[in-house]
Amino acid sequence: MFERVAIIGTGLIGGSFAAAFRQRGLARHVVGFSPADGERALRAGLVDALADDLATAVAGADLVVLAAPVSVNVHLVSDLGGTLADAALVTDLSSVKAPVARAAVAALGPALPRYVPSHPIAGGERSGPEAADAALFEGRTVIVSPLLQSDPAAVEQVERLWQAIGAVTRRLDVETHDRVYASVSHWPHAVAFALAATMGADLTEPGSTALVGPGLRDMTRIAMSDPALWADILLANAGPVERCAAAFDEQLVRIRDALAAGDRDALVARFAAAARWRQRIGGERD
Amino acid sequence: MFERVAIIGTGLIGGSFAAAFRQRGLARHVVGFSPADGERALRAGLVDALADDLATAVAGADLVVLAAPVSVNVHLVSDLGGTLADAALVTDLSSVKAPVARAAVAALGPALPRYVPSHPIAGGERSGPEAADAALFEGRTVIVSPLLQSDPAAVEQVERLWQAIGAVTRRLDVETHDRVYASVSHWPHAVAFALAATMGADLTEPGSTALVGPGLRDMTRIAMSDPALWADILLANAGPVERCAAAFDEQLVRIRDALAAGDRDALVARFAAAARWRQRIGGERD
Repeated sequence: MFERVAIIGTGLIGGSFAAAFRQRGLARHVVGFSPADGERALRAGLVDALADDLATAVAGADLVVLAAPVSVNVHLVSDLGGTLADAALVTDLSSVKAPVARAAVAALGPALPRYVPSHPIAGGERSGPEAADAALFEGRTVIVSPLLQSDPAAVEQVERLWQAIGAVTRRLDVETHDRVYASVSHWPHAVAFALAATMGADLTEPGSTALVGPGLRDMTRIAMSDPALWADILLANAGPVERCAAAFDEQLVRIRDALAAGDRDALVARFAAAARWRQRIGGERD
Repeated sequence: MFERVAIIGTGLIGGSFAAAFRQRGLARHVVGFSPADGERALRAGLVDALADDLATAVAGADLVVLAAPVSVNVHLVSDLGGTLADAALVTDLSSVKAPVARAAVAALGPALPRYVPSHPIAGGERSGPEAADAALFEGRTVIVSPLLQSDPAAVEQVERLWQAIGAVTRRLDVETHDRVYASVSHWPHAVAFALAATMGADLTEPGSTALVGPGLRDMTRIAMSDPALWADILLANAGPVERCAAAFDEQLVRIRDALAAGDRDALVARFAAAARWRQRIGGERD
């Protein structure tokens, strides 16, 4: 139970966090700060009140949640130093952990041990406070990424608050998190955008988009995600993403080489390895 | 109503066609020929009888359906010349039309006007006669691709037989078909295989596959398709597929360049164009 929770950024993720906390009675007072969508979050009943600036929002808060896009969270965490109450627990919900963690190490000083990064694996193609949902995190995984400097008690508090709103927590250090999520999420979003863009430029035959079947439809579904949000995520995790992009490119090059050479055996072997991996992660075939 | 239908290749597609025909009483006798899976199709009750070879299967048939993989259909159609009854209607169900059509032009002689290529857009990741389903084509699109030499009456007969088992037909010439399907289906399968193979090689962190979410899961679902079948399809349509692969590669290169340059505006513009295309083909967001 927290006395005053400050939610910085009240879009889908921050708004859902606020709603979940209020619905379960985990906070006496939830104050939001979000120049872009704070008013809409207040109208949607996600927060009790709005603050005019960051310092006012976090003054006296015993929990501060940074739920803005990752590039904004980097600036926000830099501005937090000196504004926090002594006992304040701080977490950010960014999809990329290293840039925010680096900024925290540089800026938080004595408050650093009570900053614990986390990343809820939830969201999808919707965005904005209107899409917020108090049940968004129920049954979902939340990665908690303690720093070497993190106070173990603070890490456990952050894990327990996520569990209190229905999430399943898992620890992953910052660097591993960013490497794994470059592979399982960030680069695949770029691939989906690239595939949809290819189709947009290529399918000029009248009526041909009506021929798009469930396979391509599923492969490009996440290309409906927020373009600015995903540009930010990819830029914030550019190093690990480029590593994954290069590995993917090598797979594509080998497929195109085998096609050009008419090398059926090479294609079958490559596709079979791919199919085995996919079946291993859950072979439901629709 | 046909007297004798010969189904050459009795896997998912040929077996489902046979089952649909029998269930609706559209054929007095359905004979199958399929060295790989004919016995299993007979046991599954998809065909009335099996023939020992192609010539026996098609002897006296008034409908011949080539439902083997595309590379096999090319050889089958070459062997059909001289074996067909005068009134026989012939179609192939290959996912790539040009190689089979070329072989038909070379081999069928006086029977060529009654050969009409078709391509049912159905199937998915399952395969084999055990997955066959008399309802597989209900409500599905079937592309009918008449040749310049096709008898208009034969084209209409092929369209009507598909409609009789519940499909919606659409005409597309052979070259257009192969170009459009390289984009909407063939190359996306290669991308799904490449993405799954990248993950298989890359996700070595223990437990990291548990972190794969619905986005990547959907993007790699068709990587569970039959590796040999898809190697054949891609090889048979290598020209149009390579054209699409090159266009896709250009999209990827530009995204990686923008990431390396930190060019947020370029990424947002590219992703927004992709999102617009995807929303245009059906904006359901789950």
